[in-house]
Amino acid sequence: MLYLGVDLGGTNIKVALVDAQGNILQEASRPTNLPRTAEAVCDDIAALCLQLSAGRSDIGGVGVGCPGTVDDRSGRVLYSNNLAWADFAMSDYLEAATGLPVRLANDANAAALGEALAGCAKGADSAVILTLGTGVGGGIVLGGKLLTGYTGAAAEPGHMVICDTKDAPLCTCGRRGDLESYASATALIRMTREAMQAHPESALWRLAGPDTVEGRTVFDARDAGDAVAAAVVGQYIHHLAVGIANLVNIFFPEVVGLSGGVANQGEALLAPLRAEYEPMVFGAAYAEKKTRLVSCTLGYRAGVIGAALLAAQE
Amino acid sequence: MLYLGVDLGGTNIKVALVDAQGNILQEASRPTNLPRTAEAVCDDIAALCLQLSAGRSDIGGVGVGCPGTVDDRSGRVLYSNNLAWADFAMSDYLEAATGLPVRLANDANAAALGEALAGCAKGADSAVILTLGTGVGGGIVLGGKLLTGYTGAAAEPGHMVICDTKDAPLCTCGRRGDLESYASATALIRMTREAMQAHPESALWRLAGPDTVEGRTVFDARDAGDAVAAAVVGQYIHHLAVGIANLVNIFFPEVVGLSGGVANQGEALLAPLRAEYEPMVFGAAYAEKKTRLVSCTLGYRAGVIGAALLAAQE
Repeated sequence: MLYLGVDLGGTNIKVALVDAQGNILQEASRPTNLPRTAEAVCDDIAALCLQLSAGRSDIGGVGVGCPGTVDDRSGRVLYSNNLAWADFAMSDYLEAATGLPVRLANDANAAALGEALAGCAKGADSAVILTLGTGVGGGIVLGGKLLTGYTGAAAEPGHMVICDTKDAPLCTCGRRGDLESYASATALIRMTREAMQAHPESALWRLAGPDTVEGRTVFDARDAGDAVAAAVVGQYIHHLAVGIANLVNIFFPEVVGLSGGVANQGEALLAPLRAEYEPMVFGAAYAEKKTRLVSCTLGYRAGVIGAALLAAQE
Repeated sequence: MLYLGVDLGGTNIKVALVDAQGNILQEASRPTNLPRTAEAVCDDIAALCLQLSAGRSDIGGVGVGCPGTVDDRSGRVLYSNNLAWADFAMSDYLEAATGLPVRLANDANAAALGEALAGCAKGADSAVILTLGTGVGGGIVLGGKLLTGYTGAAAEPGHMVICDTKDAPLCTCGRRGDLESYASATALIRMTREAMQAHPESALWRLAGPDTVEGRTVFDARDAGDAVAAAVVGQYIHHLAVGIANLVNIFFPEVVGLSGGVANQGEALLAPLRAEYEPMVFGAAYAEKKTRLVSCTLGYRAGVIGAALLAAQE
């Protein structure tokens, strides 16, 4: 049996035809062209699905990763800030349009399911996936299934407060000092800019101006021997380590996988991060097994693969 | 079928004969009499089990809640600080001694399972149980099963850092500013003592001296109109709210249940706690369903009931 995985983003609609092992057989995409009504966007999703499934009778279903809060049980998008949709019965609409059963997940959760089942945590019994991008998204997969909750909402590990102080950075969620406010690429860029303002002598200024700083800038400057950049990297790694240790203490997962731009640093990020977070883990001194901290492997295709594998589940 | 639930504590061994709905039919206990070898303690556990099961052929198994880190899959106690045991094959030993299959859980996890299946979260699809005692223990129950993890270790939500600063209180786990260091009864007593030292005029002094402060002292003084006590209660509730909001953002559970001495305050604690944590929950503004925050209902019997219900599971 094959499955259609949809990654619905603010910019593009990506659809892939995927087998039960998570291999992509065919892909197609269209611009999302927002602002549009939910029905108009779903008509395009359905058209892409029908294009990829044309002439086939072995399609088991459609999985959709959608930004915002979705309820897979009721098949509804409760609220999506990115799409400007609220309370839309997406599964019903897409089932009518495609003639296939439809499953919904939050987009970050769909990508996490892809990584857990077919990417960096393939074969593991449990995984926490964190995406270090504009925000800190992610998902938790236990025994092959996404952790959603009573509300149907995705796990939001990025909105776990790790430093509850009045002067901690403010997150878009309204709380100060959560993991997202310290460990997103946005936060790293903010910290880099602050360090540049405070240190006119830093080599950071040779790599970028305040408006052209990227997540990698501070790593590049650190590699070039800049002490200011090394301090920012150290701080960033510390905050991320606190968040990872918290999640390990809650889930003791087999794998923690990092994705997103910052994770492209690979071992340059992972090695110091392991050194910092592992001693923070409860019972680390006598644990027989430990969580593996790794980079995600599926890249931007994690979303369509995970969505398709969701459709393959009961 | 009936099950034997064992709550192994540093002071007493409690055993109960429990039905599949969590009702206790019979109970027995003995002092743990530490320090003793694991084998000697298990001989007493087995004797209590045989006493309660004498003449019955409808006993499905034994569940044990044990302090420390246990691995139910391998049936071993990996490490127990309270018992001063390490790497003991408890299930094998007890199976040989009782002739019954044995399941193991961390003691706080066993109690959480009891509350989730037969207590405050009976019928709920998911529950986070926090015990506010000497430390902050607890457990997470999803779809009727305890969340354990790759290592077999219990979830340790008390060791989630919520205030990562250099001057945050130090936890016995070695980290500063975790939920336990702010929300345990021990933390509340510390905060009460600090407030007394700083405020010789406080009515707290009329209720207790620094050596006789209990968890309830500050609530009693607050009820008597003391502003210093009200401030301590407010601070305590704030920290606990941050921790609960973090856990809700991760699990979006149907129920959060609080047990332990501090939770005996009931609605006097729960009502202001709800007012404080609910706005911190991600997506609270448009959520259709919300987590119920309640007091646990089984009291000290949660441990034996949960252990027995663990034995009833596949």
